[in-house]
Amino acid sequence: VQNRQLANGFMLTRVGVTGVKKPVVVRRAGKSTTLTCVFDLFVDLPSNQKGSHLSRNLELIAEVVDRSIQSPVKGIEELAASMCRDMLQRHEYATVSEVRVQGDYFLERVVPGGRRTVEAYTLMAKATLTKGEEVRKMIGVRVIGMTACPCAMETVQDIKGSAGDCGANITHNQRNVCTVMLEVPERFEVEANDLIEIVEASFSSPTFEILKRSEEAHVVIEAHDNPKFVEDVVRGNLQLILERYTSLPDETMVTVRSESEESIHKHNAFAERITTLGGLRN
Amino acid sequence: VQNRQLANGFMLTRVGVTGVKKPVVVRRAGKSTTLTCVFDLFVDLPSNQKGSHLSRNLELIAEVVDRSIQSPVKGIEELAASMCRDMLQRHEYATVSEVRVQGDYFLERVVPGGRRTVEAYTLMAKATLTKGEEVRKMIGVRVIGMTACPCAMETVQDIKGSAGDCGANITHNQRNVCTVMLEVPERFEVEANDLIEIVEASFSSPTFEILKRSEEAHVVIEAHDNPKFVEDVVRGNLQLILERYTSLPDETMVTVRSESEESIHKHNAFAERITTLGGLRN
Amino acid sequence: VQNRQLANGFMLTRVGVTGVKKPVVVRRAGKSTTLTCVFDLFVDLPSNQKGSHLSRNLELIAEVVDRSIQSPVKGIEELAASMCRDMLQRHEYATVSEVRVQGDYFLERVVPGGRRTVEAYTLMAKATLTKGEEVRKMIGVRVIGMTACPCAMETVQDIKGSAGDCGANITHNQRNVCTVMLEVPERFEVEANDLIEIVEASFSSPTFEILKRSEEAHVVIEAHDNPKFVEDVVRGNLQLILERYTSLPDETMVTVRSESEESIHKHNAFAERITTLGGLRN
Amino acid sequence: VQNRQLANGFMLTRVGVTGVKKPVVVRRAGKSTTLTCVFDLFVDLPSNQKGSHLSRNLELIAEVVDRSIQSPVKGIEELAASMCRDMLQRHEYATVSEVRVQGDYFLERVVPGGRRTVEAYTLMAKATLTKGEEVRKMIGVRVIGMTACPCAMETVQDIKGSAGDCGANITHNQRNVCTVMLEVPERFEVEANDLIEIVEASFSSPTFEILKRSEEAHVVIEAHDNPKFVEDVVRGNLQLILERYTSLPDETMVTVRSESEESIHKHNAFAERITTLGGLRN
Repeated sequence: VQNRQLANGFMLTRVGVTGVKKPVVVRRAGKSTTLTCVFDLFVDLPSNQKGSHLSRNLELIAEVVDRSIQSPVKGIEELAASMCRDMLQRHEYATVSEVRVQGDYFLERVVPGGRRTVEAYTLMAKATLTKGEEVRKMIGVRVIGMTACPCAMETVQDIKGSAGDCGANITHNQRNVCTVMLEVPERFEVEANDLIEIVEASFSSPTFEILKRSEEAHVVIEAHDNPKFVEDVVRGNLQLILERYTSLPDETMVTVRSESEESIHKHNAFAERITTLGGLRN
Repeated sequence: VQNRQLANGFMLTRVGVTGVKKPVVVRRAGKSTTLTCVFDLFVDLPSNQKGSHLSRNLELIAEVVDRSIQSPVKGIEELAASMCRDMLQRHEYATVSEVRVQGDYFLERVVPGGRRTVEAYTLMAKATLTKGEEVRKMIGVRVIGMTACPCAMETVQDIKGSAGDCGANITHNQRNVCTVMLEVPERFEVEANDLIEIVEASFSSPTFEILKRSEEAHVVIEAHDNPKFVEDVVRGNLQLILERYTSLPDETMVTVRSESEESIHKHNAFAERITTLGGLRN
Repeated sequence: VQNRQLANGFMLTRVGVTGVKKPVVVRRAGKSTTLTCVFDLFVDLPSNQKGSHLSRNLELIAEVVDRSIQSPVKGIEELAASMCRDMLQRHEYATVSEVRVQGDYFLERVVPGGRRTVEAYTLMAKATLTKGEEVRKMIGVRVIGMTACPCAMETVQDIKGSAGDCGANITHNQRNVCTVMLEVPERFEVEANDLIEIVEASFSSPTFEILKRSEEAHVVIEAHDNPKFVEDVVRGNLQLILERYTSLPDETMVTVRSESEESIHKHNAFAERITTLGGLRN
Repeated sequence: VQNRQLANGFMLTRVGVTGVKKPVVVRRAGKSTTLTCVFDLFVDLPSNQKGSHLSRNLELIAEVVDRSIQSPVKGIEELAASMCRDMLQRHEYATVSEVRVQGDYFLERVVPGGRRTVEAYTLMAKATLTKGEEVRKMIGVRVIGMTACPCAMETVQDIKGSAGDCGANITHNQRNVCTVMLEVPERFEVEANDLIEIVEASFSSPTFEILKRSEEAHVVIEAHDNPKFVEDVVRGNLQLILERYTSLPDETMVTVRSESEESIHKHNAFAERITTLGGLRN
């Protein structure tokens, strides 16, 4: 039925499947781990074809998952890129393919004080391919951290008096969700772990699952010594990305987004920059 | 088909519909407003009947919504209770009925500083009726506020020195979601607005959608003058409920739940008390 | 603090607030109703300014909500457009503003058989304004309907035999969520209710909250007489939009998206077209 | 601070942490796999103590996760039970402990036609312990399947004629989410995989991620040969549980819940039974 010809159809931008959940074995930094991944796969559809063969997307995912057990995937952005290439072969009528993958990810971190802890993150990847061109792929991370508001800190000091006064640098602080997506051009590599480090360095403080009393105090003190707006979090990420990825070309896409679940409001504060490394370098 | 007889079936505890969204006109404190409500309706099903007549639940909701346009509903717990009675008549085979309603709600509040603001809340109601007994109904609210941690405040003081020192009473603070459900016995009334006031008085500070600089500072200072664990938030609510509802009988059910979206952790802190007013009075 | 100058900052694409919930009084088709709306508001931020004045966004929302009580809003896309203009004045440093609004919406429909029912929808609007240009605004709807799969219907017929055979046109059918966003150029008007009609006409069948036995059968029969892929749903919408909005200019943006919560799979099927009316007319 | 004494506090039913995400290595049916688990841990709190030591819960989770790498966990219900025992030791003031764990789970299934596929499920466990008593633990699964409505099938036959007529057994069908929780008494074992089989056998048909044309037809035909209400799904599960677990004692708790995401409505249909095996055996 899908192959049927249409006389006067419309072409479609994206046709595919969303929310396909599968376990993928990934080898990163020398260790194999199983990521529970959620896949979205799309191709375009020409105006004269009735339907896209959706089951081919599922067969591709199944093969990729199977293969990862024997030979673990290097990174989910590599996986997404190779799936994009494969999709243009399976869907012979398509001229564009797109794959998005997302999965829970865990990393060992060191709490101020030296104890080790396992923290939870989200890995994200996106790849797109236009027939005859090179595949474009992005790797990304979503990280939860903490921001302390610089504005309220100053206003409180105006009211209560500054140095030597007990109210001096109190402020509201809160959970911040920060997302970074960075393009990985052909022949370059970007480590998701490095992106996580960049994001955690851009908060007022990273957060940790276990904090004993004195460690908790150090996190609180560090956050208050580094008060940051959502704007500061995004700019901090951009600065560190610029310093870290000097060899990546100017046209490399980068997106940084910070959302602050304000403790003094019921809504969120939000900041975002969508640009290229060249756009940052000027 | 639903009426068909079963030889050896199992009785079912709850059969019904969930997630039915409808606009209900409510008159509370002298003013009519439209609440976008989500309804769940259930009855039990005897072992010898194949199915429940689900469309009767939808007809009941439609009638209730229609009627509210002419004659606004007094409160969603009253609505839930009357729907429970109606359901036992429409489902002649049932011995128990249950209705849950939930809706966005808005209330004018006064910011410290005197300006008026409209804040968002969630109203909840639940009613259950066993044939031959009195209907039992509960009214509830879900409120977002702010807590500042008393433990980190003391530990920071231990490290940085207390009185006269600039780090003295800094701590982590965060968004807190608090839910109170209170039974409303026959011939008694409970105002949802009163419950909202009780919950907001139990946080380190209520939160507001608009805060100018000095108002923001006052909210921050108030929160730091009232540091509270999730445990304190629940106990504060219980204390105020006890003082406010002295005439309600001992068997009145009450549930208080506080969940703190910790700014220093990726997980939440949680406290809950499920009891009766009698259980609190001892 | 926000006004502070930065020597070497980065400009930011979007800074603002998300998830602000407020009741807005809307007058559409001669009737006032209260929509519970969720607002996202953003402006850009120049590289030399530390922060955006977020509270100005909240003041704007509060004024808009207040004003709607006296003088109901004409449509949420008009509201979003006028808020965009207002934001460039309040944020004197900004060159771009963006407003997104979303709200639950209800409409009376007629069930096959003639009975009236109130169905739930989501209204969406988005407006953007670049300084010195005209505001661009879009109105949109999200509608739940039903699709029956044409492919399985044919394959079943291949197996069970076609005409005269009892298995002849059975197939899997499921809930489909379809979203249409259409630009509303200056001096033109688009009725959200018309978009809802277009979407409902593009499903295998619209769905209804109450269906008596014979009405339910008619919906099932209609759906099976109109089997549709997600691709067909999107193309059906595009065709009806093309026929209905002949006077809208070629550069009018249109997005149609259909997501099918497949009954035979755990994942969804998805189709989308993002284009202009000109792109469809060729 | 948490240890501080209160003169007239209230006892609290549950105090703890929610939403702690960690990777747990599980060995089930001879194979180790990593489950991404979400943990909720609670103890009660006596009236005279200010706070619960929440960081002890996180230390316990960290130890459990670490240990599972060397010595994989046997089942998440065993894990939850042993954590309950541990919590009463760490929280010396507590008399009740409760642990809930939930994780994505994958299982190889065979499509009608013989091809193998990996399907996604949710595993759930809950354990509670009252000091001096035996721990009570439950294992559960959430499974997505398909139901075809028996009522619409008959009504359509009434209208279109039955045997020999092409409309004969068409009906609406849809995604169904079914949850079973079964208590596992001391000295007994329950395999989650068995529960998944029971649930999948109770739908009109299980669902599969990949279906080639003829396989899809067989799933559709099977579903239409087994039309089921949500009530039938719950009763089918209860019947199979009764037959499968004859040796489990009468007081074994069991909960079965089925929610149908109706294709002809915007709301869901729901059925539930909460009982004991003894309650089913009578």
